Amino acid sequence: MRDVAIVGVGMTKWGELWEKSLRTIFVETALLALDDAGVDHIDSMIVGCMSSGLFTGQEHLGSLLSDYLGKNPVPAARVESACSSGGLALRQGFSEVASGMSDIVLVGGVEKMTDVTGCEATYALGTAADQEYEGYHGLTFPALYAMMAVAHMHKYGTTREQLAMVAVKNHDNGSKNPLAQFPFKISVNAVLNSVLVADPLRILDCSPITDGAAAVILCPAEMAGKFKKPAVRIAGSGQATDTIALSSRKDLCWIESTRVAAQKALAMAGRTIDDMHLFEVHDCFTIAEIMITEALGLVPKGRGGKAVEEGLTAIGGKYPVNPSGGLKAKGHPVGATGVAQAVEVVKQLRGEAGARQIKGAGRGLTQNMGGTGGSSVVHVLEAM
Amino acid sequence: MRDVAIVGVGMTKWGELWEKSLRTIFVETALLALDDAGVDHIDSMIVGCMSSGLFTGQEHLGSLLSDYLGKNPVPAARVESACSSGGLALRQGFSEVASGMSDIVLVGGVEKMTDVTGCEATYALGTAADQEYEGYHGLTFPALYAMMAVAHMHKYGTTREQLAMVAVKNHDNGSKNPLAQFPFKISVNAVLNSVLVADPLRILDCSPITDGAAAVILCPAEMAGKFKKPAVRIAGSGQATDTIALSSRKDLCWIESTRVAAQKALAMAGRTIDDMHLFEVHDCFTIAEIMITEALGLVPKGRGGKAVEEGLTAIGGKYPVNPSGGLKAKGHPVGATGVAQAVEVVKQLRGEAGARQIKGAGRGLTQNMGGTGGSSVVHVLEAM
Repeated sequence: MRDVAIVGVGMTKWGELWEKSLRTIFVETALLALDDAGVDHIDSMIVGCMSSGLFTGQEHLGSLLSDYLGKNPVPAARVESACSSGGLALRQGFSEVASGMSDIVLVGGVEKMTDVTGCEATYALGTAADQEYEGYHGLTFPALYAMMAVAHMHKYGTTREQLAMVAVKNHDNGSKNPLAQFPFKISVNAVLNSVLVADPLRILDCSPITDGAAAVILCPAEMAGKFKKPAVRIAGSGQATDTIALSSRKDLCWIESTRVAAQKALAMAGRTIDDMHLFEVHDCFTIAEIMITEALGLVPKGRGGKAVEEGLTAIGGKYPVNPSGGLKAKGHPVGATGVAQAVEVVKQLRGEAGARQIKGAGRGLTQNMGGTGGSSVVHVLEAM
Repeated sequence: MRDVAIVGVGMTKWGELWEKSLRTIFVETALLALDDAGVDHIDSMIVGCMSSGLFTGQEHLGSLLSDYLGKNPVPAARVESACSSGGLALRQGFSEVASGMSDIVLVGGVEKMTDVTGCEATYALGTAADQEYEGYHGLTFPALYAMMAVAHMHKYGTTREQLAMVAVKNHDNGSKNPLAQFPFKISVNAVLNSVLVADPLRILDCSPITDGAAAVILCPAEMAGKFKKPAVRIAGSGQATDTIALSSRKDLCWIESTRVAAQKALAMAGRTIDDMHLFEVHDCFTIAEIMITEALGLVPKGRGGKAVEEGLTAIGGKYPVNPSGGLKAKGHPVGATGVAQAVEVVKQLRGEAGARQIKGAGRGLTQNMGGTGGSSVVHVLEAM
């Protein structure tokens, strides 16, 4: 296997982009990444997208996006793993460069979610759950994560306030990210008094519906010196699955696919979790971030709520989690999220993260998740 | 890059499988492939599927299918390139084994298409076209291929009867394939008198709506001797894109993505098209097979109609095309088709193809296509 590096990143402002279609959002972002690397030619494209069929009536994104980027006849693939589609795209691109099949690969993620009604969006997102055993019986994702939250509160004494503190921390960070959908601070009281979605989760516990894209340029590490910016090595890649239905899990409070994927990625990199200087993780709901910090091994089982309360996961804490603002403040265009996590880590390792910069960051970890943890993808990135 | 071999194949009877859901169809097929190889353990899964979101309300197939196959926490990915999703899955699996990331990879393709109405199926399939410039204006796939057929007839004198002869040949072949959806012969007259769909294409020019799956097991070629059956090497893999909209093409009668993908796959294999002993190609409509035989270089531009008339592409002809029955007779569960093409070539190279066996077949080519040729994936397979 060849070593693989990220030599360019791109991300545009996320939000409700009613004036732009999926292809426009993607192409603008991909051009930024190409420009950041200073390349024109690519050998291949991999695009992560969860459900362009249900959100926009458009599949066949490989053909569409290579066409609109002016890259035909370059090979182009779309990959899907629900909300971890972006992380999966990064992994597939890594595999393609590592194998020697391609040298320069554009990995992108995109989702256009606001051209449908709220009900249609909830249905489309629900296709990440087990339709026959969850969806058809009325379960939506806020409801599934609400059950996980209740179980965690009951088993470990996690408090309603600790859930809110995850959202407050991520908005603090996001207020320093000009590309975030919601770049402003919120308070614990604001979370506690926001509209109830699925008890105990309120609207400010939930990541939003977002239009957006993110892109990175990969190449063999031995070529990385030729490009404009300092390169970042993909030192480890791990992916794992778990039961798609929450009801089949041994423990409602534990995300096993994240534990396995992280272990694999760290083993490939020859690192431990304590070697990492920052973490971009999948806080689709506040309870998710708490459970992820436990599954990654940042804190013992059941201590994720306490960790955020004590500032352990804040910028300046021992384990800075989601300096970008996370899914909560930055936004969550589902297929783009996993790629955007890598964009943030690369910016941090280059020292380009502005007011949210983690000082001396040399290594970072991304954790991207599908459904209630039915799939997880973890990458370890290191400055070269 | 490591050499990659196919050491197991599986396919179940295709058709309107109302009593089975997507997960059941996939798992039954995957188990056949695992049994054929004589393996239990896999390192990874790649699944090709075009639009499970629109056909069944279910995305996140990696998690779902590894779960129901009893393989959690194995990494599992879903890939999509419209009707070439299966070919893309094979290519991604090839990349994953070639890179050294995984040793034993299950590559599957699946589509469950008959749980929706005809209109809904037409809409779902239409998402392979350019929705903004084709779909929203009323264009469906029969209409797009009808325009290609008219252009080919006008430019090269291809006849209505020659189109019919493609369907007749593929039903002749399919009548010898017990797993085919329509394992019976038809006549030229039957095609000419069948219901008109989009002039000049009639219902018997069109591949059907099908439920089905196909699966293969990949491993490094150096491990291939350990398995039950004779192994087949993936000697070449090529993929290419073209404009998604037909209106942007330079030539309505030419499938450039297939030409490029085939050239790449043959170059990787160090072979020419004349070294191949059989061809499984994407005859979604009769005109498609005619244009593909030209793009592959089996016959000069414009001579594809004449070729089928003269028996060149029949079993026993110089270039046997679609001995399995092709999409027309075998069926076309869109995400499964590309994998099923590889299943057929492996069976032929092993001498397991029964009444449709190509004598002495040692090398075969698969060509899988998305949309009107917006993407193509070609593989060269050789007996080891």
